[in-house]
Amino acid sequence: MHLSKRLAAELIGTFWLVFGGCGSAVLAANFAGPVHGLGIGFVGVSLAFGLTVLTMAYAIGHISGCHLNPAVSVGLAVAGRFPARDVIPYIVAQVVGAVLAAFVLSQIALGKPGFDLVASGFATNGYGDHSPGHYTLAAAFICEVVMTAFFLFVILGATDTRAPAGFAPIAIGLCLTLVHLVSIPVTNTSVNPARSTGPALFVGGEAIGQLWLFWVAPIIGAVIAGVIYPVVAGKKPEGQAVSAASAA
Amino acid sequence: MHLSKRLAAELIGTFWLVFGGCGSAVLAANFAGPVHGLGIGFVGVSLAFGLTVLTMAYAIGHISGCHLNPAVSVGLAVAGRFPARDVIPYIVAQVVGAVLAAFVLSQIALGKPGFDLVASGFATNGYGDHSPGHYTLAAAFICEVVMTAFFLFVILGATDTRAPAGFAPIAIGLCLTLVHLVSIPVTNTSVNPARSTGPALFVGGEAIGQLWLFWVAPIIGAVIAGVIYPVVAGKKPEGQAVSAASAA
Amino acid sequence: MHLSKRLAAELIGTFWLVFGGCGSAVLAANFAGPVHGLGIGFVGVSLAFGLTVLTMAYAIGHISGCHLNPAVSVGLAVAGRFPARDVIPYIVAQVVGAVLAAFVLSQIALGKPGFDLVASGFATNGYGDHSPGHYTLAAAFICEVVMTAFFLFVILGATDTRAPAGFAPIAIGLCLTLVHLVSIPVTNTSVNPARSTGPALFVGGEAIGQLWLFWVAPIIGAVIAGVIYPVVAGKKPEGQAVSAASAA
Amino acid sequence: MHLSKRLAAELIGTFWLVFGGCGSAVLAANFAGPVHGLGIGFVGVSLAFGLTVLTMAYAIGHISGCHLNPAVSVGLAVAGRFPARDVIPYIVAQVVGAVLAAFVLSQIALGKPGFDLVASGFATNGYGDHSPGHYTLAAAFICEVVMTAFFLFVILGATDTRAPAGFAPIAIGLCLTLVHLVSIPVTNTSVNPARSTGPALFVGGEAIGQLWLFWVAPIIGAVIAGVIYPVVAGKKPEGQAVSAASAA
Repeated sequence: MHLSKRLAAELIGTFWLVFGGCGSAVLAANFAGPVHGLGIGFVGVSLAFGLTVLTMAYAIGHISGCHLNPAVSVGLAVAGRFPARDVIPYIVAQVVGAVLAAFVLSQIALGKPGFDLVASGFATNGYGDHSPGHYTLAAAFICEVVMTAFFLFVILGATDTRAPAGFAPIAIGLCLTLVHLVSIPVTNTSVNPARSTGPALFVGGEAIGQLWLFWVAPIIGAVIAGVIYPVVAGKKPEGQAVSAASAA
Repeated sequence: MHLSKRLAAELIGTFWLVFGGCGSAVLAANFAGPVHGLGIGFVGVSLAFGLTVLTMAYAIGHISGCHLNPAVSVGLAVAGRFPARDVIPYIVAQVVGAVLAAFVLSQIALGKPGFDLVASGFATNGYGDHSPGHYTLAAAFICEVVMTAFFLFVILGATDTRAPAGFAPIAIGLCLTLVHLVSIPVTNTSVNPARSTGPALFVGGEAIGQLWLFWVAPIIGAVIAGVIYPVVAGKKPEGQAVSAASAA
Repeated sequence: MHLSKRLAAELIGTFWLVFGGCGSAVLAANFAGPVHGLGIGFVGVSLAFGLTVLTMAYAIGHISGCHLNPAVSVGLAVAGRFPARDVIPYIVAQVVGAVLAAFVLSQIALGKPGFDLVASGFATNGYGDHSPGHYTLAAAFICEVVMTAFFLFVILGATDTRAPAGFAPIAIGLCLTLVHLVSIPVTNTSVNPARSTGPALFVGGEAIGQLWLFWVAPIIGAVIAGVIYPVVAGKKPEGQAVSAASAA
Repeated sequence: MHLSKRLAAELIGTFWLVFGGCGSAVLAANFAGPVHGLGIGFVGVSLAFGLTVLTMAYAIGHISGCHLNPAVSVGLAVAGRFPARDVIPYIVAQVVGAVLAAFVLSQIALGKPGFDLVASGFATNGYGDHSPGHYTLAAAFICEVVMTAFFLFVILGATDTRAPAGFAPIAIGLCLTLVHLVSIPVTNTSVNPARSTGPALFVGGEAIGQLWLFWVAPIIGAVIAGVIYPVVAGKKPEGQAVSAASAA
């Protein structure tokens, strides 16, 4: 597949990840109701993020490999599953998609009377005072490294040629759901530098000041998994399913 | 498969979508409990809508393609996956199924002492004062266009012959869940003109006055995806799985 | 497979359906928490019922067909997918499994200080004053007929030889989840006479007095689907996957 | 696959089970929100535990069989699906992974101002005063035996060569979700001695004093299933998918 088509797919897919995932958090997480809260809470937001990946992996896995995440592109490259020369173009497409998604989301969110984008947090990631549970920088850093490492480990394992074919999008999408179920209180969950960058640009201030952590920690985690998985799994496996097309 | 059987399947399937999806909203979303709300909230309604499509796609995908949605039929036709001459008959069957479902649902809902169908909203879609979160017309319009475009993009990708076979109903059903997780607060989520029409006929007033948006915006979104997907995906792929039968 | 093994599988599977489904309702639905309710509510109960079927369909589908439900056995027989001579033995095994499950569940539930089995309702089904939302007998009857008809329709479609192989347990299990998401407020959801019978025997009174509806309505619904599906689907398809083994 | 690689996979996988499952309980279950609780509650914790297994089964099923649980290794050995000589090494790797996960989780959890690890319970299992619902020892024991027996029964059935290939991780992972949906109020749900041991070591006191039950009861349940499944299923089937690699 020509690189331009793969980059278009990554841009569209990352748009969906940020629009759907962050959109669920901004628009629906905390909705009130007459008897009890009708909002989707952290369970709903976790499900939404995971389903953006599950749905796009079936939709564009055969086009671009459906990374939607700079850390994923880096981790796959480290593991020898993705050509290093394509990492930067993929990351650019992902960030552009994320920023566009945050823009469109902001236009919808501002359609609600009284909505204050900055005060809402707009689904940005953060630590310390900007962590939902006020977790320290150290806790946030460890959490993002560990979560991204396991996310990549699952991606590498589920797309291994020895794993059952066709199921990788389910494993990977629901892994992202799991990651969110655990870590939203800590950092609002990133494991994806592009997802963190999109909303931060529209909130500014500390959302941008803390953005470095959500580039550094996920990429460290991804590199760790990219090194460890091939060692544990034995002979280097051929890429399959989700990541196969990306190397085409 | 003969057109009459396919239309019967579409009618039954769209009945299920409206009965199950809107039924969960009308009967179960806001149920109280002794300790806390037992109702299913927006998470449960989102899951219900998605599961109507997931279950029917496995049940009738091989009969009619399981569109259950005028916007889906239009989008597939634009992408060259569905014969244009069948679009109108499909839409008629879908709307009839939706109206019948709303009628049966009303008979059950009215079995609860004190239930007021119009005051309940009866799961109708709306904007402005009729939006759950009072979102403006513009926000509602953008939201429905974008959501339907991505819904169709996922349908087109997941039923591409290059995507893993058999998984399309999971991807498509859970995509509808995702769409609801994000957008119930904005428009009560349509992305489906038939689903909007059924309940509106029983509520009347502004539910009908605003119905135009839930025909126009989803179809615009579907057309956009029908144009874009084939460009991004490269050579026009043969339809498969869910949509294949519909062209048979 | 010898009938005795198939009946053992049905007994074990229906035990799991009642133990897991009703157990989630009795033990976990309304659990309190320090900040908000931690209980699983109707969403969790719906998920639990569906997952009992999904898990057992993969575990024993190849042994007995995994009906776990008298209405399912009847509906499959009407559609020509299951030998009529096996219907009664299957139903007996299902009811025995359901009663044993209700007994074991009662022993666990009574281990909580202050638990009153009868006052709790013990997950029994009911209408009127015994409906969670006080729905009338007529509403309850319609709801159970329609729900069971669609449940069987999905079973017949998803196990059709023309549907993707291997996915039927997902479609069928999640269809039961969907049925519960909609109808717990109406009847506490039966669509399964064995599931209704088990807990009712331990509660007595009106739980038994109303039990007739949860035998009659689901079986009517199942017969309707058993007649309609083959007509809509065209030539009578060979059974597959979940129901195939049952005919072996 | 060499034993050392299989043990590394088990260690990593059990780390993920405890980190993800217990992590969701410790960090996210009871999170407050401005309008209503945003925390994931027992539904979210149930989903998280199940998804740790689903994701790892796709990631390392082809390496170690993905047991992640001493009771699973014992049950598979009893059923003749796993070499008895590998049971002890597997259990050691699983316990080491669980303890490491509890340690890393504690470091993150302590990053929240005011967090008291012992007072929080730290997701330990218990009965009597240490049961979430104060269930008696007898109820807790019965519950753990029955739950583990069915969990193993589903594992043995879903990995039977006659079950559809590739779906076992879904059935097994979601079975663990189901087990939690029912039994968190009773014992906080173990069915896995390694999962119980990890957090208990960091809490001490009665968490360790009650630990025996969460080794004895799950293993009894696993042995029961390991004996019963082959009888019900007829001729001893060859292991497949998830458990196949473990015997390689």
